[in-house]
Amino acid sequence: MSDTVLEFFERNVFGDLEAQAFPLLHRIESPRDLKRLSPDALPKVAGEVRDYIIQTLSRTGGHLGSNLGTVELAIALHYVFDFTEDRVVWDVGHQAYPHKILTGRRKRFDRLRQYGGISGFLKRDESEYDHFGAGHASTSISAALGMAIARDTLREDHSVIAVIGDGALTGGMAFEALNQLGYLKRKMMVILNDNDMSISPNVGAMSGYLNQIISGQFYTRTRERIEKSIKAIPGIGSYVAKRAHQLEHIVKTMLVPGSLFQELGYHYVGPINGHHVDQLVKVFEQFKQADGPVLVHVRTVKGKGLPQAEEKSETYHGVGVGYLPKREKSIAVKAKSASPPSYTKVFSQTMIKLAAQDQRIIGITAAMPSGTGLDAFAATYPDRCYDVGIAEQHAVTLAAGMATRGLKPVAAIYSTFLQRAYDQIIHDVCIQDLDVTFCLDRGGLVGADGPTHHGTFDIAYLRLIPHMALMAPKDENELQHMVATAIDHNGPVAVRYPRGAGRGVAMDEMPKVLPWGKAEVVRKGSDLMLLGYGAVIHPLTQAAEILDKENGMDACVINARFAKPLDLDTIIEELPSSRLIITLEDGCLAGGFGSAVMEALNQRQINDVSVHRMGIGDHFVTHGDNRILHCNEEIDAEAVLRKARSLLKLA
Amino acid sequence: MSDTVLEFFERNVFGDLEAQAFPLLHRIESPRDLKRLSPDALPKVAGEVRDYIIQTLSRTGGHLGSNLGTVELAIALHYVFDFTEDRVVWDVGHQAYPHKILTGRRKRFDRLRQYGGISGFLKRDESEYDHFGAGHASTSISAALGMAIARDTLREDHSVIAVIGDGALTGGMAFEALNQLGYLKRKMMVILNDNDMSISPNVGAMSGYLNQIISGQFYTRTRERIEKSIKAIPGIGSYVAKRAHQLEHIVKTMLVPGSLFQELGYHYVGPINGHHVDQLVKVFEQFKQADGPVLVHVRTVKGKGLPQAEEKSETYHGVGVGYLPKREKSIAVKAKSASPPSYTKVFSQTMIKLAAQDQRIIGITAAMPSGTGLDAFAATYPDRCYDVGIAEQHAVTLAAGMATRGLKPVAAIYSTFLQRAYDQIIHDVCIQDLDVTFCLDRGGLVGADGPTHHGTFDIAYLRLIPHMALMAPKDENELQHMVATAIDHNGPVAVRYPRGAGRGVAMDEMPKVLPWGKAEVVRKGSDLMLLGYGAVIHPLTQAAEILDKENGMDACVINARFAKPLDLDTIIEELPSSRLIITLEDGCLAGGFGSAVMEALNQRQINDVSVHRMGIGDHFVTHGDNRILHCNEEIDAEAVLRKARSLLKLA
Repeated sequence: MSDTVLEFFERNVFGDLEAQAFPLLHRIESPRDLKRLSPDALPKVAGEVRDYIIQTLSRTGGHLGSNLGTVELAIALHYVFDFTEDRVVWDVGHQAYPHKILTGRRKRFDRLRQYGGISGFLKRDESEYDHFGAGHASTSISAALGMAIARDTLREDHSVIAVIGDGALTGGMAFEALNQLGYLKRKMMVILNDNDMSISPNVGAMSGYLNQIISGQFYTRTRERIEKSIKAIPGIGSYVAKRAHQLEHIVKTMLVPGSLFQELGYHYVGPINGHHVDQLVKVFEQFKQADGPVLVHVRTVKGKGLPQAEEKSETYHGVGVGYLPKREKSIAVKAKSASPPSYTKVFSQTMIKLAAQDQRIIGITAAMPSGTGLDAFAATYPDRCYDVGIAEQHAVTLAAGMATRGLKPVAAIYSTFLQRAYDQIIHDVCIQDLDVTFCLDRGGLVGADGPTHHGTFDIAYLRLIPHMALMAPKDENELQHMVATAIDHNGPVAVRYPRGAGRGVAMDEMPKVLPWGKAEVVRKGSDLMLLGYGAVIHPLTQAAEILDKENGMDACVINARFAKPLDLDTIIEELPSSRLIITLEDGCLAGGFGSAVMEALNQRQINDVSVHRMGIGDHFVTHGDNRILHCNEEIDAEAVLRKARSLLKLA
Repeated sequence: MSDTVLEFFERNVFGDLEAQAFPLLHRIESPRDLKRLSPDALPKVAGEVRDYIIQTLSRTGGHLGSNLGTVELAIALHYVFDFTEDRVVWDVGHQAYPHKILTGRRKRFDRLRQYGGISGFLKRDESEYDHFGAGHASTSISAALGMAIARDTLREDHSVIAVIGDGALTGGMAFEALNQLGYLKRKMMVILNDNDMSISPNVGAMSGYLNQIISGQFYTRTRERIEKSIKAIPGIGSYVAKRAHQLEHIVKTMLVPGSLFQELGYHYVGPINGHHVDQLVKVFEQFKQADGPVLVHVRTVKGKGLPQAEEKSETYHGVGVGYLPKREKSIAVKAKSASPPSYTKVFSQTMIKLAAQDQRIIGITAAMPSGTGLDAFAATYPDRCYDVGIAEQHAVTLAAGMATRGLKPVAAIYSTFLQRAYDQIIHDVCIQDLDVTFCLDRGGLVGADGPTHHGTFDIAYLRLIPHMALMAPKDENELQHMVATAIDHNGPVAVRYPRGAGRGVAMDEMPKVLPWGKAEVVRKGSDLMLLGYGAVIHPLTQAAEILDKENGMDACVINARFAKPLDLDTIIEELPSSRLIITLEDGCLAGGFGSAVMEALNQRQINDVSVHRMGIGDHFVTHGDNRILHCNEEIDAEAVLRKARSLLKLA
């Protein structure tokens, strides 16, 4: 049997190769194996883990930089703690590859983020060592505090640790949790993994504060202030000044870095070099049994060990497959030059064009300047672009405040992350009917990032908000017109578009304002209506063409353009004689676009139309290649074809 | 004409009375009038504003305590700044009654929170002086920063001020905004209105920090630390110790209260007595032109000027009509003893009963212990109830963390406030299918609090989340069973129930677990189906009875109990021969309960049923008496009756 041959090769040939390249790591099947090593072997393990990540990611792609930064941290944690009992919550999860490698998933690591393979984030049902899943930032302290309270309630005794990046610390809920933990004073360790970097360079006053601690500026600045005060005192001042070394001593005794955290009730430890595994082990052992909350400030370098990644950490945050096929080829592969521009890029270029004509246009991003394309906008209009950090709630209300004064803010936030600002959209923007445009990149399925990142709920959760209008373009050319239309419209509008490359259609020179609330008839046809919203127009058109060619059936294809206000008039005008409509959306069916169509027909009591809604059912969608996911979810051309043939009794 | 008589009385008789009681205030029609007074008249104005609020609220009800605390603050702000140019954002808005009284709304003040009268919160279309509306906490700094950026972008020159309570400061988005403002260093004033109190006594480490500043403990504690360090130094120590007054001087020079805010980039001023209007005026004038962000820490007393309110500030946060009919009757009137228990109280009692049987049950509230009824639970089980402060995001992920360890957390959060935690519900609870129960008080219309507080979206925004189950009880007896059912169920469940008194039905002794996903047939009938979710079952039953009595028509009434999973089987079983269904919900129609019914029928391709959805249309609902609002929104028995008669062609 071929299985046996493969197994033989895996066990013997590949196994030997692995054993040579990773003499320590290849024997670590679980943290128990790590614990058997002597402390001085740990730096070698770190080197192997780092190489393993670099080599594997060159084949799989993934979050490179942040994971190279946490190698020693993960080793030290698993060396000191026992996470079959103790609990650890890794914030965001994309700093947890070393943790995955050490907890029995090394051999599955080359199927990282692939369909059927392991997740790029933590996942509770993937390993007993993944105590809390995450993909969005800033949740770890809350979740860990919940575990600490559970421990105390159930009279258990173990350690609870949250590992949070400095970027995630700007998220408001991290502060909410810090605030409560400092008050409750539970036994818990918060490890601040400070690489002065979330995805893009960090913004915010807290970041500045942390930098001062790290750089020693905090010490210098405060020492100067104290020296000045003491010297200014008549009598004492001159006496003390003469004894400079004693003055130094006064200052050192009094000064505590991290006083901000101490004011909030934490025992602050740090800053510690996060790449000295022995130091980390010592600190963790020392504070393992501490009574109250301890904040360990660990300094790490994003991309550690890979010079080009250390240098250009934003480029190497997430990398595509083959970013390192040979050592000399050190530029991350983003998109082939021949492929169509991404929706992100078209949005970016549109913003730049429109901003040239209207100085009221302002761009807002929440720690995603390059992901949303606003980096290029910021380069052109540095005074008109605001990166608020990981702080979606603030981003939206900030936009609302701007809009009250006549600016035209455009908040570019991924569909999935906009969930963080749901109340602000309702309470601050829509109740007041303010002129804010939301541009939702990553609408629909996003592929390898999986369930925490799919943008499948926005149509439904935004559609129900009064005053909100919703648009989605069928291709990248329509996107530019929709951005113009949304900004032109006076009131809240959300434009959603998918992750990745456009369709490669011809681009109009300039964005233009589309007729408000009007659908587009893409294709006439009297046998069946295929009605879609957004990027699904392409599979609908494909299906219509095959139906025509292979079955001689004429399907009309309607591009709704607006999910709200929905253009029911056009739908009714184009209704085929069969009165059959298939709706398609790359979002959840519950309350989604198809339901909007049904609601509108119902509102006018049009009861003789048969609507067949296709979209994502009542479940979360796993990670993997989008083509596989679209096929599984039955939201591709083939699925539409099957449904159409069955409805038309052609099967 | 009677109008003229009334006007005559208002102008002359009432006018004279008002002039006697409020000699200064009755001449203040706008802030311009206030500015004409000399500074030493301001304390008298304050006294009159305070009396005016106390007298008016005894007739109207409203947020008493917080508004008595901001009288001098509002006067000083309007005296120093010109809010036709300058901007002010009052956080939450229920600290803004003095602001309303000073900005031309004094005469409309007795119609506060009533239908057609002025709002209990700020409202942009109510006054040119209301620069940003609010009802939920923690938004002011974000909105004000948006205005400051707009000012700088448009090259304008005016002041921008955010007034935020210490309670609202625990909300994560306030920190997000503080963090960005400290970094951007825009010219802006943040006034921290510190009354050591949000609605209930404040929790959190930040609150402890502020208390230390206010009480002088911060000074004492730090002075001791410094003295100790200095004295410990050989040579210098003893020399300095002998000159105690010089030591005092060292410490005073070095010590800055509010260092936490200074670390974040703010010029900290305070603490200042918020009831000394002259001090406030001086500080505002001094820092009006400051370059960067200034944080003015103002100490106020909630309920100031009304001894019983100062003492029991939680009771007097919001008061009902007639809380002060006579001076001697000083207890807030909450509910008549004869009226049925509120849903809140029944939830509270149920929690206490269930917790006695299951020690895994934990209560979580976000600064609403009495509003949600968890105060009584906390009194019985102090170790099993957590008030996280105004921090709904953290509350939900905290619950998720607890659930991973086998606890059964119950997060009791108003429907409208749960919007704050939307991402956490999806990302932390539902993706991981964790066993968290959400109890949503104030589901549906809430009356006087108006659009920021109506709980009309939860059915739609929760229904679309996979793994989430939704329930709503027809009365308070069913509520207790639903709480038991939700806690018993292993997975996320949300139970929503209305504000106010139950129906006065007989209560079962003990809560019991209801059949999962099963609807209840309240009334059999073959002419028409009335299908409802939650408290709307009562008007449906009323309508059915009138139809029977007056029209001889037999309507069946179905209590869905579950919006998800929806019991379509029972609906189909009970379908009347007319195949007519009226659905009713006190929530938004878009994506709501009625849509769930349509989706379910559509899913099974049952096309011969005519569904008529009644609920709240695509608009925000104003404030006022709930009976008026239900009538306007056509979600009461009369509206159902009209619709039923029209469908049955009885009209």
